[in-house]
Amino acid sequence: MLAPWRSPLARALHRNRSLAYARYLQLATVRPDGRPTNRTVVFRGFLDKSNQLQMATDIRSQKIDQIQHQAYGELCWYFPKTREQFRLAGSLTVVTHTEPEPLLQLARRSLWHALSPAARSQFAWPNPGAPRIDESLDLSPEAIANLDLDQPLDTFCLLLLEPDSVDHLDLRGEPQHRCLYERQGDTWMSQAVNP
Amino acid sequence: MLAPWRSPLARALHRNRSLAYARYLQLATVRPDGRPTNRTVVFRGFLDKSNQLQMATDIRSQKIDQIQHQAYGELCWYFPKTREQFRLAGSLTVVTHTEPEPLLQLARRSLWHALSPAARSQFAWPNPGAPRIDESLDLSPEAIANLDLDQPLDTFCLLLLEPDSVDHLDLRGEPQHRCLYERQGDTWMSQAVNP
Repeated sequence: MLAPWRSPLARALHRNRSLAYARYLQLATVRPDGRPTNRTVVFRGFLDKSNQLQMATDIRSQKIDQIQHQAYGELCWYFPKTREQFRLAGSLTVVTHTEPEPLLQLARRSLWHALSPAARSQFAWPNPGAPRIDESLDLSPEAIANLDLDQPLDTFCLLLLEPDSVDHLDLRGEPQHRCLYERQGDTWMSQAVNP
Repeated sequence: MLAPWRSPLARALHRNRSLAYARYLQLATVRPDGRPTNRTVVFRGFLDKSNQLQMATDIRSQKIDQIQHQAYGELCWYFPKTREQFRLAGSLTVVTHTEPEPLLQLARRSLWHALSPAARSQFAWPNPGAPRIDESLDLSPEAIANLDLDQPLDTFCLLLLEPDSVDHLDLRGEPQHRCLYERQGDTWMSQAVNP
């Protein structure tokens, strides 16, 4: 069942669709030393028949370690055109090449398929964050074309966030409007709160 | 002394200056229960003669409690026009109405001055995040005009982030370019790394 925040979020996505970066959002996680980290990720749609947001990530990126330590994150999503913010907090799941669950493995493969060749090729790059040695990270056009569409690279992971609280702030209103959605099991409660 | 990441950041701010929301960035903090949170804040310039980023916050907002528990945060700043990301991690300082340090109290007052009347009036609103009771949060034009320019409301705080690591990613390059800056005392080291 669609959560009640899905419809304002779908509306925001639609009204901001002319901006490619309206699909960029920021994911906060926590490092093993207890300090927060924050980076931009790309929204890749919802996992089929669920309210889980899909993102792509590299198994070598630091967030994988962070999520193993603390499998909880908060996404902050600002929509410039409509001046809305969604904060989505929830548990994180990393779907790797060894994922045993067939439906999750299928979703991982579908996302690999959906990526652009340029996005796919990043998973063949040298270790992210390591000192740069080679001057060119670009793979040859042949190497990119040879990336198997049906067989994602082992570095490629599907990252899922299952929200259990969503904070929607609409800055356009006079006055502003803010609504909190909280999940209890399969039920969502919502409440208007002060901005 | 200006940190070496100040000049690429100033360039990004300049090249994105036509977009008001290029001054919006996302601040991650950690809750007392160890889970991360994330919200959009507005960059309000640098504290005079320092590399500390200034933001405004309400003393009643949840991040104040979070910062008391863990005074460390990470800002994620995406510049849409030039397709650049800066991640700035560092310690957080909240400058409240009881701040004894005269220079910080002066900076707090200067920022209050610099805010628009609409931004100032938010600090007179009812408790943020509390259930909404009053249908109108708008103060009367008289009430807004009466907000004392020289005497910030007690709810108004200056929030400072003093970076000790900055990760600059430039997505435009072919290949992309990524540079890490790390502070050791008063010295900054930088290194090109794989994106």
